[in-house]
Amino acid sequence: MIKTDIIIIGAGPTGLFTVFEAGLLKLKTHLIDALPQPGGQCSEIYPKKPIYDIPAYPEILAGDLVDRLMEQIKPFSPGFTLGERAQNLETLEDGTFVVTTNKGTAHNAPVVVIAGGLGSFEPRKPPIGNIDDFEDKGVAYMIKDPEVYRDKKVVIAGGGDSALDWSIYLSDIAAEVSLVHRRNEFRGALDSVEKAAALAKAGKIKLFTEAEVKKLYGDEHLEAVVVEHNDKARGESYVEADHFIPLFGLSPKLGPIGDWGLEIEKNAIKVNNSYDYQTNIPGVYAVGDVNTYPGKLKLILSGFHEAAVMCQSAYQRINPGKRFVMKYTTVGGVTGFDGSVKEAKKEVVQSILA
Amino acid sequence: MIKTDIIIIGAGPTGLFTVFEAGLLKLKTHLIDALPQPGGQCSEIYPKKPIYDIPAYPEILAGDLVDRLMEQIKPFSPGFTLGERAQNLETLEDGTFVVTTNKGTAHNAPVVVIAGGLGSFEPRKPPIGNIDDFEDKGVAYMIKDPEVYRDKKVVIAGGGDSALDWSIYLSDIAAEVSLVHRRNEFRGALDSVEKAAALAKAGKIKLFTEAEVKKLYGDEHLEAVVVEHNDKARGESYVEADHFIPLFGLSPKLGPIGDWGLEIEKNAIKVNNSYDYQTNIPGVYAVGDVNTYPGKLKLILSGFHEAAVMCQSAYQRINPGKRFVMKYTTVGGVTGFDGSVKEAKKEVVQSILA
Repeated sequence: MIKTDIIIIGAGPTGLFTVFEAGLLKLKTHLIDALPQPGGQCSEIYPKKPIYDIPAYPEILAGDLVDRLMEQIKPFSPGFTLGERAQNLETLEDGTFVVTTNKGTAHNAPVVVIAGGLGSFEPRKPPIGNIDDFEDKGVAYMIKDPEVYRDKKVVIAGGGDSALDWSIYLSDIAAEVSLVHRRNEFRGALDSVEKAAALAKAGKIKLFTEAEVKKLYGDEHLEAVVVEHNDKARGESYVEADHFIPLFGLSPKLGPIGDWGLEIEKNAIKVNNSYDYQTNIPGVYAVGDVNTYPGKLKLILSGFHEAAVMCQSAYQRINPGKRFVMKYTTVGGVTGFDGSVKEAKKEVVQSILA
Repeated sequence: MIKTDIIIIGAGPTGLFTVFEAGLLKLKTHLIDALPQPGGQCSEIYPKKPIYDIPAYPEILAGDLVDRLMEQIKPFSPGFTLGERAQNLETLEDGTFVVTTNKGTAHNAPVVVIAGGLGSFEPRKPPIGNIDDFEDKGVAYMIKDPEVYRDKKVVIAGGGDSALDWSIYLSDIAAEVSLVHRRNEFRGALDSVEKAAALAKAGKIKLFTEAEVKKLYGDEHLEAVVVEHNDKARGESYVEADHFIPLFGLSPKLGPIGDWGLEIEKNAIKVNNSYDYQTNIPGVYAVGDVNTYPGKLKLILSGFHEAAVMCQSAYQRINPGKRFVMKYTTVGGVTGFDGSVKEAKKEVVQSILA
């Protein structure tokens, strides 16, 4: 059982900044995210897109925003459970919570904050009858560790950046890479498209365009896929495959959190913003795009504010009766759990003899 | 009469970011600040101090924060009335407001937002009986335009960075610079202290330590000051002076805003945060450190959030009945009033022929 002060569900920008605000109050944090890396949408969906409304950043790429936040929270050494979806919330007799993931990892803390953004991003699955049977037996919807595919036969489906970039990457590692896309045009960065085309020409990627994977075969594990060509005259192709990875993007769903007994309105969690962004379950908070209240704006900068306010309330809950005197970082500096200290250089006092 | 959409009182970080959020909604803004430059406390009091809790800035100097915000709001060409204190608020028959400064500059808009921080920073005045008589006749508490002092005899009082830095700067411009400080130790950056000491040694600055200016003389305009030495045996020094500039720091006061009929609690303006940070006067908002509501945190990042929420409400007030569809900057880019456009490069779509 992982124990901490605050379990943060969702490692997007708001969840990450919660680590910082909690850390200033000497509270430890542990993040859970269904995605294999921190950053939420910013890392997974648009790392190379500029954001213009982060205060004091006239322009910052979403991926860089995540990098800067990771640097800012480093002193507070947060824990991470990545690639696992928060599944169950249980309240213990002592009033603390246990959050368990879909892989069974259990976390215990007196405070839970849901910073789940638009929800967990569930992969869009292609409509293949028996695809569920092969999940974790050759079928995966995201690539966590590319080494899994070393010397294997891999079929990737999709026409966007993920499909292109992973096909390119795996062409060096896998025994064979096939890329299947139902159109003839790819939607991706110019250099990715060109690189994939060059690799196809060199025979390093087997390209099937205007085609779709329609059937999966295998016994215990995936063994082959059937590719159906749009041009019926071309019929079907049988492709041997140890792995099939459809990369059709992610679609946000509130997911299991929707069943935790929280008040939900328009697919978002209702909170009382006038004080601390707490939900109808005392001790469970919601911050960032996942929450709703009158006047709510789904902006990253609002999530940052909500995280700061929420941590003050969490502090009171964890340290009942204890008075916390807020110190500005400009005055008090930042002392990390890792022993690091950041502080302004003391002004130098020196005598002048006239 | 200066006309705009939103009059922003206070050009600190929150006031500056309000320009950006208003600009995204196509609303024009004009800032009023008692200080001679934008940035509020960050520029005036601690420009060289690092701040650690601006989201995604592991560390940023207060002065750099202001520079980045000025760069971010540039596309929205805000107006500035600087070095003037917002004095009067008047409601016209058409429901719009007129804000007049202590120098008589009048501004008209349908929305006023007070982003006044801890209030206007009033200079700490030394206890000299007739000092008020010489204000604007040789006595000033801040330096707006150093050229005023070219070839003049100047006496500066104080022992901090401002007193040191301005003495150093004016020693090149003025006919004579005297620096009077009641202690023998200066509290300032090491290199400023050393530079001032070197200039004193070279005869470019006349240094009076353990001494205070106690009397002012002059007819229409200041002509001389009397410096009293702590060591009574040394008596008084009579120093000819066209200008006397006591730089004893600034002390925050809510000031005239306190008389505008706004609900005040603990020297802050009460707002209803649950929707839009509006005060008890409809159309007048308060954001940042100047406001108060249950759970209020006096953090710069909270001011940013409050500004964003407040602008949505201002939009409705200015465009009644018009529906505004919020677009993320990541999707819609930023179009400035100056014709500038920032936007993400379009993803490139290209064909691969298999």
